[in-house]
Amino acid sequence: MSDVVNFLGGLEDQMVGYIFGRRRATDVAHSVWKHVVREGDTVVDATCGNGHDTLALVKLVAGESGRGRVYGMDIQEDALRSTSCFLGQSLSTQEMELVKLLPMCHSKLAEIDPDDASVRLVAFNLGYLPGGDKAITTKSETTRLALEAAGSIIEPGGLISTVVYVGHPNGREEFETVQAFASGLSTENWVCCKLQMLNRPLAPVLIFMFKR
Amino acid sequence: MSDVVNFLGGLEDQMVGYIFGRRRATDVAHSVWKHVVREGDTVVDATCGNGHDTLALVKLVAGESGRGRVYGMDIQEDALRSTSCFLGQSLSTQEMELVKLLPMCHSKLAEIDPDDASVRLVAFNLGYLPGGDKAITTKSETTRLALEAAGSIIEPGGLISTVVYVGHPNGREEFETVQAFASGLSTENWVCCKLQMLNRPLAPVLIFMFKR
Repeated sequence: MSDVVNFLGGLEDQMVGYIFGRRRATDVAHSVWKHVVREGDTVVDATCGNGHDTLALVKLVAGESGRGRVYGMDIQEDALRSTSCFLGQSLSTQEMELVKLLPMCHSKLAEIDPDDASVRLVAFNLGYLPGGDKAITTKSETTRLALEAAGSIIEPGGLISTVVYVGHPNGREEFETVQAFASGLSTENWVCCKLQMLNRPLAPVLIFMFKR
Repeated sequence: MSDVVNFLGGLEDQMVGYIFGRRRATDVAHSVWKHVVREGDTVVDATCGNGHDTLALVKLVAGESGRGRVYGMDIQEDALRSTSCFLGQSLSTQEMELVKLLPMCHSKLAEIDPDDASVRLVAFNLGYLPGGDKAITTKSETTRLALEAAGSIIEPGGLISTVVYVGHPNGREEFETVQAFASGLSTENWVCCKLQMLNRPLAPVLIFMFKR
């Protein structure tokens, strides 16, 4: 029963915490993922960064079946090295086998071959690599291509999850790009929802695109 | 324990349901209120409408202490009659005594005398009276005055909760007014957060202003 409470408590705490300014946007995203991703699923971390999202995804798909798969993409080799190191410290050998790190721009998302499995979730954590070169950020145009690719590979019941940082130089334009993409998806097939802090204009924005 | 699960499950279900397009904005608002309002609190329903929000608020403040208070405001007498009738069918005599219905415009919010009690929550459900004359809607200017009044009477730890409908003629302007008000509140004292459907531009928008 306490597992149920913990599970139910997860998103609860994160959402309330976010609304009340106590939780980070990424914590909310992780909690939403728990309601979408199941053991054995195939998922994509389109922007590995330091690997925190990748780790959270592995924990969701890993299990006794050993069938889960996490594709982790990043155009920066520093990011993949950092992710690989972080995962190595945090995961078992068995869990590590579920991860495939790809030194690719997220706009090449459609080139991932998910072994004929459909993709349950594509996660984007946009902006620059924490601790890395802040001049290297995701770009609006590649992000738009990546979102289109994500939209084409995601299965019904799946989710495109984005955390968008508006504080970096390309951030505002990238935010507008993600928002325009989500706004343009058909209501017949997609539910697109935005969570945003209003009196902290530089706070990260959450945009979820849920495929019916 | 099942009470704990139900309680924790409340916002959980509503939030996930909202993100995934299965729940109404008002259901999410009610769930957030549960985390703010306690038995014995004084709260204000600034826009009674048909009384559904008023009822939800009475259920939150009512209890053995008998100290709770719900002020229900609406400028339309039809709305207060409808609210009174709805509450009469749904509440005990004891609970009814906690309610004070006021035939006033919500811009007069500051004129409510909360018996020296501080106010924990002010709820706005903007737009027109469901089933009433759709030409009579809340107006941007009175709503702005009402928000300012709400901001001045709400206690630390309290909440201004708004559900904004952008589909009626004044809706877009009213939405901009609420958003501008929330965006202008100091981050030192307020956390302001917006939940919005992106690919359904006429869907109601939730704006929460939580006072630290």
